[in-house]
Amino acid sequence: MKALRFTNNQLKLEGIAAPELKNEAVVRVLKSGICNTDLEIVRGYAGFSGTIGHEFVGIVEKSDARPELIGKRVVGEINAGCGACELCAGGDSRHCPNRTVLGIQGRDGAHAEFLTLPGENLLEVPRNVSNEQAIFAEPLAAAYGITEQVEIAPETRVAVIGDGKLGTLCAMSLALKSANIVLIGKHIEKLSIAKKRNIESVLLQDALPGLNRRFDVVVEASGSESGFATALDLIKPRGKLVLKSTFQGKANLEMWRVVVDEITIVGSRCGRFAPALDLLENGSIEVTDLISEEFPLSKGVEAMRRAAEKGVLKVVLNCVE
Amino acid sequence: MKALRFTNNQLKLEGIAAPELKNEAVVRVLKSGICNTDLEIVRGYAGFSGTIGHEFVGIVEKSDARPELIGKRVVGEINAGCGACELCAGGDSRHCPNRTVLGIQGRDGAHAEFLTLPGENLLEVPRNVSNEQAIFAEPLAAAYGITEQVEIAPETRVAVIGDGKLGTLCAMSLALKSANIVLIGKHIEKLSIAKKRNIESVLLQDALPGLNRRFDVVVEASGSESGFATALDLIKPRGKLVLKSTFQGKANLEMWRVVVDEITIVGSRCGRFAPALDLLENGSIEVTDLISEEFPLSKGVEAMRRAAEKGVLKVVLNCVE
Repeated sequence: MKALRFTNNQLKLEGIAAPELKNEAVVRVLKSGICNTDLEIVRGYAGFSGTIGHEFVGIVEKSDARPELIGKRVVGEINAGCGACELCAGGDSRHCPNRTVLGIQGRDGAHAEFLTLPGENLLEVPRNVSNEQAIFAEPLAAAYGITEQVEIAPETRVAVIGDGKLGTLCAMSLALKSANIVLIGKHIEKLSIAKKRNIESVLLQDALPGLNRRFDVVVEASGSESGFATALDLIKPRGKLVLKSTFQGKANLEMWRVVVDEITIVGSRCGRFAPALDLLENGSIEVTDLISEEFPLSKGVEAMRRAAEKGVLKVVLNCVE
Repeated sequence: MKALRFTNNQLKLEGIAAPELKNEAVVRVLKSGICNTDLEIVRGYAGFSGTIGHEFVGIVEKSDARPELIGKRVVGEINAGCGACELCAGGDSRHCPNRTVLGIQGRDGAHAEFLTLPGENLLEVPRNVSNEQAIFAEPLAAAYGITEQVEIAPETRVAVIGDGKLGTLCAMSLALKSANIVLIGKHIEKLSIAKKRNIESVLLQDALPGLNRRFDVVVEASGSESGFATALDLIKPRGKLVLKSTFQGKANLEMWRVVVDEITIVGSRCGRFAPALDLLENGSIEVTDLISEEFPLSKGVEAMRRAAEKGVLKVVLNCVE
């Protein structure tokens, strides 16, 4: 089968053997989405080697554990725990120290014709959710997951920093909980997506000093060191700073401000898929205008190049050749 | 009066006019304690200029607002809000953006014969709390304040990093809530103070990898960048990292680990004095063996030098000349 792989520090479309059943379900991938993490991996983040990609929708081809899923359209939680450790036993396999993560850690990913995942990771996609919507289940779960970590009340003042895919999904998710959401970014075109949904959007250059210390909650989704510094400017004393984006290596940060202002920083990575599918199904979150372009899997390398360009949002791969 | 002052980047004992009543209480200082923050200020932290010192016990000489305190022995909350802003109105003058802080920000401090503070900042010291104990009210309030920010249950596993004054007070405070406290430091003699109180003490070099990811809560009180990295090694996924110590400038930190392990970081600066005085009064926390040495105020410069030496804990100034 074809697979978009990062091996020996090179991104290539390769022909490899289709995965075997093992103890896992085999999924024929329909479409997959390129995430910033894919771009980071290709820059060496996390030292991953193998097939990249972790946002997908596909059809279950085989599954011993959940035969009722065969032929069904699914998305899948990307963390697979060892099943034996204290964390897995406690139901938190997302933090299992021996976990594999689809296309990110120790497990071939979704930019391929087939992938495998434990049957329990799969969720059936509701009929009225399109393939294009379904590939957003993973990033939307991550964005909406914030609401399970931090209380967002109708009056909570929230700033989201970063007008990329993740920041926009965060702003859209949090806007379901509070009317006081401000999305802050550097690109008028990208900000316009949130604006269309009546979310207040502000160019970074216009945000400070006017919005200094105005927010109860700030979500850092820009993936940059300077985003962290901006967050400390925007947040109220004793406010909550949600860190969504990872960036490679060490960051140079004024942590003393966190102590002096008694800020709480909440590291936030994944979220549950079920609420995300609900939001897509009931139309609370509309995502398809976040798609910039679609490429066939065979043009995966070109698609990755495109995804890295300025102003580009979600790039989708069509994996059915 | 004599005052230990840091002005024009120089630490000197100066003779200056005693403070006037203004709208504040005048306190004759009996004893004051040298804090690491004093040492940081002398290294240029916070750009403070004036009389340093913020841990004290004294006698109220004058107070228009609270005449009943005159002649009483007091300690005092060190933050004085503007009284007019949103935060002060909400009762949180500790985070008032225009606040002054005794001996730290815009307000002459406690290493002097007299100081002034708003009357409402003062708390009478219980009769059976000695002067030596009372000067610990401020750092003990800061240490015990953790228990108001993070839930510490009897079974919560807590590591405290840093065997200095603050780390030791944190370990002692948290040991009142949980039996699973481990103090981690670099100095056997300093660790022995916690050990005497039956708190498990471990040399940093022996802590890892054995204690890797073992703790629900980690308190960083070492005041060093490496302490933050150690904290990330010790903490469980989804654990809480309490940042107690400030250090100057930017720190080089692997913040991506906070996102991946979904750590919550809780910045923690001050605490309420009343519970700290209770702990000193009822004997729950014994502090006097944390005092390394006492100097007269007139030898303040020498005392500061001594406080900066390795292995030295609390240095006290006797301000009654």
